[in-house]
This record gives sequence, structure tokens and C-alpha cells, in this order.
Amino acid sequence: MPKIVDHTTRREEIAEALWRVVRRDGIRAASVRTIAAEAGWSAGAVRYYFPDQDGLLKFAMDLVSRRVTERVSAIEPKGTVPAIVLRYLDEVLPLDAERRAEFDVWLAFMAQARAESGAGTLQEHLDTVHNSLRHLCESLLRSLADAGALKDGLDLRSEVERLHALLDGLALHAAIQPERTTPTRVRQLMRHHLGTLMAENP
Amino acid sequence: MPKIVDHTTRREEIAEALWRVVRRDGIRAASVRTIAAEAGWSAGAVRYYFPDQDGLLKFAMDLVSRRVTERVSAIEPKGTVPAIVLRYLDEVLPLDAERRAEFDVWLAFMAQARAESGAGTLQEHLDTVHNSLRHLCESLLRSLADAGALKDGLDLRSEVERLHALLDGLALHAAIQPERTTPTRVRQLMRHHLGTLMAENP
Repeated sequence: MPKIVDHTTRREEIAEALWRVVRRDGIRAASVRTIAAEAGWSAGAVRYYFPDQDGLLKFAMDLVSRRVTERVSAIEPKGTVPAIVLRYLDEVLPLDAERRAEFDVWLAFMAQARAESGAGTLQEHLDTVHNSLRHLCESLLRSLADAGALKDGLDLRSEVERLHALLDGLALHAAIQPERTTPTRVRQLMRHHLGTLMAENP
Repeated sequence: MPKIVDHTTRREEIAEALWRVVRRDGIRAASVRTIAAEAGWSAGAVRYYFPDQDGLLKFAMDLVSRRVTERVSAIEPKGTVPAIVLRYLDEVLPLDAERRAEFDVWLAFMAQARAESGAGTLQEHLDTVHNSLRHLCESLLRSLADAGALKDGLDLRSEVERLHALLDGLALHAAIQPERTTPTRVRQLMRHHLGTLMAENP
């Protein structure tokens, strides 16, 4: 099946070209034309994979989702449960240039989805990404609960929503004012927040 | 001074036309052309107030800031300090259609500022808006501390940053999934969060 192999390779090459453009010039610079130039292809060949700007944004967002999923899957569950939970949270926060570029894609994606009139396909896509981060927060808090590390009497549903909102809020602030909301500060605040949920003597 | 009066009136008229377009068709639909049509003016007259798309976004953001400031200033400091604090927080959260439209402007503004290469003028503007919300969080928590309503031993600086991040995170989630993160739910989570900071017997 040479055709399928070819498609997979092409998608990978486009993804890499797209990512180089995003890292270097920002998501707004990513267009069929700039990505084709970066990949050394014709615009027509690139357009096969994303026919318009929305398609391109979706492609970029899928790429970000895949990158995050790969990093999260690669985390070895070693050490205490709270230590593992913090490693997971680190992977979804924009703590370095790569992850900040990922966050910028997400931000552009969200602003575009919000600007669509009615329930567009970007909104559906945004829901999927949004839900997967909430599910991650949920499974992390459940792991802590199962390990007996959480305070008694917590309302887990509320805590999932609070953790999820805090995570996105900190990511936003790290993007808006990186010199104030530094990676170190984001980690401190995240550790502080989890600390307020933990039992005194786990 | 008829000229000055004229300018003020014109700015008000443009602001109102801009806001009608944003409420009806979203911030992306706002252009010199659509706003001129809405106001019944020539594009040239509108362009005097915002020469380009960035100028228009700044104008819209200033309008949102002014609306929020007016609402916050109008709050009467009646009732208990925690009750007053919650009324302030309500005014900066996108809890109804008007405030959701304001949040959409902020989101578009931020995505655009982030997409600018280097420190552009939108970024400076974004810093101002961002800092004013942090200062509001700070003065609200200080009021609670002065009223003896907060737990002993809290690190106020961290709590300001956590409250600010949670506020923006909840606003984001209310925008992304309004059917899940409803106004009622946002208020509950905000009350829950403040509850975790309060002394048991204030």
C-alpha cells in the first residue's frame, strides 16, 4: 500500500514544516503558502491536507494534541503519587519555548473557534481538546484520592473543575506575562494549590 | 469648544456602533467598513479614530475596560465584606451575554497581541488590562484580610495570583463550554474557592 505510506509521510513532513513556522514566526504566520515554502512543496500539495485557514488551524491543533499525548504517555509512574501528578501537570503547562508555542496554537484556535458564528467544526474540535484536559485533571485527582493523599470530605467534581480552570488560567498568565508568571512561579503555584487539597499526613 | 464636544460624541457613537456589531456578529466581524455602515458614517470618518485593525481592537478593548470599570465603581459597599467581594468578582466574569461579548473582545485582543512579533503596542495594552485585574484581586483579598475574614498564615501574594488565574480560567471555560460552565456553576466555584481561604469563625 504505497499510497497510504506516502500520505503518512507527507502528513509528517507537513506537520514538521508547520511546526518550524509556528516556532519561528508564530501561528499567524502559518499559511498554506509559508508552509509549502518551508517544506519545499507546491501550495497545491499542501492544500490537499488543509484546504483553508480553518483546516490548517485544525491540523496544527491536532499536532499539538498528539505532542501532548505523547509526552504524557511517556511519563514513568515512578515515585510518590503527588510527585507523578505534578509531572503530568508540568507536561500540559507552557513551561518552555516548545510548550509556549503549543499554547499559542491553542489560543489562536480558541479565539478562532469563538469567533465562528454558531457551532462550527472548530468548536467541536475545541470541545474535544478541552474535555481531554478535564479528564486528565479528573484522573489525576482520582489517583490522589485512591492513594489516600487527599483531604477528607472534598467534593471531587468541584476540585476537578477548579484544578482545570487554574491550569488554563496559569497557562494564560504565563503566556501574557512570561517575565512575571515564570515557569518556576507556575510550578510553585500549582504545588501550592495541590498542597491545599492534600491530607496533612497522607 | 465645539470641536472637542464633537470628538467625544463621535467616539461615543462609534463605540456604540462597534459594540452592536460585536454583540450581534462577534469581534471578528468588526471592521472599519462594518462599523461605518452600522453608524451610518463614511469609512474615512471611522478610520480617523482607528486607522487599522489593531487600532480598532485597541478601541474595542478600551471600551470593554471602561464598561467594567463603570460597573465595578457602581458597586455599593453594602453587606459583609465577603458578599461585597463576590459582587466585584461577578462583574469581571462573563456571566451574561454582555459580559461574554466583552470576554470575546479580550480573547481576540490577547490572541492578536500574542501573535505580534516582539513587544508590540497591543502587548503593552494587554499588560495594562491584565495588571488592573490582578490589582482588583489584590485589593479584594486585602479587604478580606483587613476584615479578619481570611485564614491565618496565608501567603497573600500567592493567593492573589491563584485567585487571578482561577478567575481567568473560569472565564475561559465559561466561554468555551457555556452549557457546562454555566454562570451558576462559575459563581459556585468562585464561592467555593473563597470559602477555602476564609477563617472558620470570621
